[in-house]
Amino acid sequence: MKKPLILITNDDGITSKGICELVSAVKDLGEIVVVAPDRPQSGMGHAITVGDTLKIKKNKTFRDIEAYECSGTPADCVKLAKHQILKNRRVNLLLSGVNHGSNTSINVLYSGTMGAAIEGAIEGTPAIGFSLCDYDPKGNFSHGIPFVAKIVKEVLSKGLPKNIALNVNIPAMSDEQIKGIKICRQADTRWQEDFDLRVDPYGRDYYWMVGNLINNDQGQDHDEWAIKNNYISIVPCHFDLTSYQAITEINADWNF
Amino acid sequence: MKKPLILITNDDGITSKGICELVSAVKDLGEIVVVAPDRPQSGMGHAITVGDTLKIKKNKTFRDIEAYECSGTPADCVKLAKHQILKNRRVNLLLSGVNHGSNTSINVLYSGTMGAAIEGAIEGTPAIGFSLCDYDPKGNFSHGIPFVAKIVKEVLSKGLPKNIALNVNIPAMSDEQIKGIKICRQADTRWQEDFDLRVDPYGRDYYWMVGNLINNDQGQDHDEWAIKNNYISIVPCHFDLTSYQAITEINADWNF
Repeated sequence: MKKPLILITNDDGITSKGICELVSAVKDLGEIVVVAPDRPQSGMGHAITVGDTLKIKKNKTFRDIEAYECSGTPADCVKLAKHQILKNRRVNLLLSGVNHGSNTSINVLYSGTMGAAIEGAIEGTPAIGFSLCDYDPKGNFSHGIPFVAKIVKEVLSKGLPKNIALNVNIPAMSDEQIKGIKICRQADTRWQEDFDLRVDPYGRDYYWMVGNLINNDQGQDHDEWAIKNNYISIVPCHFDLTSYQAITEINADWNF
Repeated sequence: MKKPLILITNDDGITSKGICELVSAVKDLGEIVVVAPDRPQSGMGHAITVGDTLKIKKNKTFRDIEAYECSGTPADCVKLAKHQILKNRRVNLLLSGVNHGSNTSINVLYSGTMGAAIEGAIEGTPAIGFSLCDYDPKGNFSHGIPFVAKIVKEVLSKGLPKNIALNVNIPAMSDEQIKGIKICRQADTRWQEDFDLRVDPYGRDYYWMVGNLINNDQGQDHDEWAIKNNYISIVPCHFDLTSYQAITEINADWNF
């Protein structure tokens, strides 16, 4: 039987530990092609490069596995991979990550990891974004990797609903403590930003954005709850932002 | 009565024609503060600046109207405006645009204009992104501006459902031809990319991303239909990417 074609990308850049762990975990499950950013692209969400050029270069990080580094965003990598590198061959599965840091709840919107996965879903490719809830670039992935392989196998065997990307988050802990996997909704959270004001050597102000995630969502069926309770969370994401309820409300209320 | 506080941003940069038109259209409807990118930020989606610094500078483009240019993305502008410039004063309305180019259907995901508007919605601020379906930097806004003012007045008077940002697109034409306003869903489209391969003076390949929007959505209740039929389209957008239907399907199908 022909091996499935698995495209791998990320947002921390092609040399990060997380993408190496991901490639190792799945390299025997299909034909692997890696197309990932040539530098960190955290927080890039679904950004694409318009009005500027893109470059691709062969990369040797993964030895005998075909790999390319790209000057663009994670979503650019998916577009370039499909149309330029794979010449529109059918990709059976797109994997993105493993991200260094949580992409639960509202973070899905800011996440380059999930931007790439959702780009895959738009193109009709089953897609999974993986994130470890640990921001350490040397984070310990060992407890999560068996679950990564398990989820990939399940998706390869059963497929995904059409145009869906899975947002998978793995709690930061050891093997023994993970209780299992929960299919969840996206928790209703937001960031309370704070800006760290500094002065540069030339006397000019600049800021670093910092902040805390505010979670007032009391549910037990969402991804923040799952992670806090030592489960791996999986949120199936689509890309229709329409609020159908709001259409009804606005049509009833407005006069045009 | 106290004037409503209206925050204005965009993704084409603070000196673009579209934001000047927007400021002119609404300047008598409230207290206006402009915080917009210091350079074009098209295609930035919901990107935010992490791992790099941000700068803000007073800007005189709008004469007596308080304005700042920011080194970051449209979503950064909203965060900086709220927390740093307005010191957490309650913003009554966030406006983004008027964008030079369509943000209908799948474009909402790549749009910096809508990234800013959705950032407002996350923070609980009623928000509207305006786009003119004309990519010309000198595009003609005159036919759309009366509708912009009308929609802003309606939202100031009636509010919006909680955590909703409106995605408003204006067809490129003259006043007489606009048939009215339609509240729509997001059309189901995708881009068929093409990459224009060139060689730089040093012999290295580079690409420009180009492409065509593929619309196989046969509905008549979506934004692409509205624009093609000379209506202004309004899609109410939320930011919960959960596919609740996929949760049910996956829970029924998978074994963990």
